Amino acid sequence: MKQQGGRFITVEGGEGAGKSSNLAFVQSLLEAAGKKVLFTREPGGTPLGESIRELLLGHKHTGMADETELLLMFAARAEHLRRKILPALESGTWVLCDRFTDASYAYQGAGRGITRDRIAILENYVQGDLRPDLTLLLDLPVETGLERAGNRSAPDRFEKEAMDFFKKVRQGYLDIAASEPDRVRIIDASPALEQVQAQISHVIQDYLASSDG
Amino acid sequence: MKQQGGRFITVEGGEGAGKSSNLAFVQSLLEAAGKKVLFTREPGGTPLGESIRELLLGHKHTGMADETELLLMFAARAEHLRRKILPALESGTWVLCDRFTDASYAYQGAGRGITRDRIAILENYVQGDLRPDLTLLLDLPVETGLERAGNRSAPDRFEKEAMDFFKKVRQGYLDIAASEPDRVRIIDASPALEQVQAQISHVIQDYLASSDG
Repeated sequence: MKQQGGRFITVEGGEGAGKSSNLAFVQSLLEAAGKKVLFTREPGGTPLGESIRELLLGHKHTGMADETELLLMFAARAEHLRRKILPALESGTWVLCDRFTDASYAYQGAGRGITRDRIAILENYVQGDLRPDLTLLLDLPVETGLERAGNRSAPDRFEKEAMDFFKKVRQGYLDIAASEPDRVRIIDASPALEQVQAQISHVIQDYLASSDG
Repeated sequence: MKQQGGRFITVEGGEGAGKSSNLAFVQSLLEAAGKKVLFTREPGGTPLGESIRELLLGHKHTGMADETELLLMFAARAEHLRRKILPALESGTWVLCDRFTDASYAYQGAGRGITRDRIAILENYVQGDLRPDLTLLLDLPVETGLERAGNRSAPDRFEKEAMDFFKKVRQGYLDIAASEPDRVRIIDASPALEQVQAQISHVIQDYLASSDG
């Protein structure tokens, strides 16, 4: 499934990491370098994917089995890849995606306890050998992220449970970055926006210089 | 995932095979033998499964990728198994299911051309080693089935394509039955209902006599 047209760039990060504004910034950098860019997101990205996204969000609290959730995520991803991402890459368009399979490893894997091996079966099933060419991981302490996302009161018991979950997710992301340092570049999302964007700009210019695209 | 409580019985068959009335008949035979029976169906069987069923049916004609469809089927199946079928079997209830994974091999496999190996990956992923204990395959010629289902006019080009598809599905089912003769019992669904039910009754009584349940 590997393509030789556009490049596939993903942005990952937890609550309050500033994913939206930084995605727009990445897109502007790529376009300034003359790339045609398709921006998309997971889960979703196609009409069917958006319907699956509604199922996932609507049933989130009613006890869907963890592996059902994972299968639905990968069903949406299969459609997203075949209908949108792969055709764009093949035509030479660069694809910028808000979350991809790393999020499955971080949330369903590290967060909920589905093993890496179980997730890898579906990753290989749906993607073949397609992987992102570059991933920016917007990283910051969970407490800082939740504060920025608007949760400023002292945490109650449920919020503490949520915080433990998000800490596992963060560690999951950091473990991926440690195991694939060439693909996954950690961006420290703690400082002010201009400092975060200086790091992003550095990584993107570096990537553009090293890629032949 | 294998259980030692109830038994898991599935009924498969194409258009016009009389699945509904014969399912009710199987249920009455099991209940007459003192079994507690849960009747359920695929795709569906849970609230989430029914939502996925709607997605599948609603998007059927708008070009969902074949493997997306297969992943959605198995997502519904994962939920159905974990929330309904396995808990029933573990409590000693017999489960009678209108279609199960054989239908994925017949329709998405033989019908649409997804390979057996690809389907087996998801079957093993979702089911572990759980397989039906007994499967009744209601078999009849495609033309007879379509006639019974109300399609009595001479086939136009699209209906001929549909007929070719259903012939592949039928052959897919027969191939499964040939490779697993102990589990899958072929019921000739061509003759009148009482003759079909005589065959079903024979198979079920035989199974009840040989099983310790």
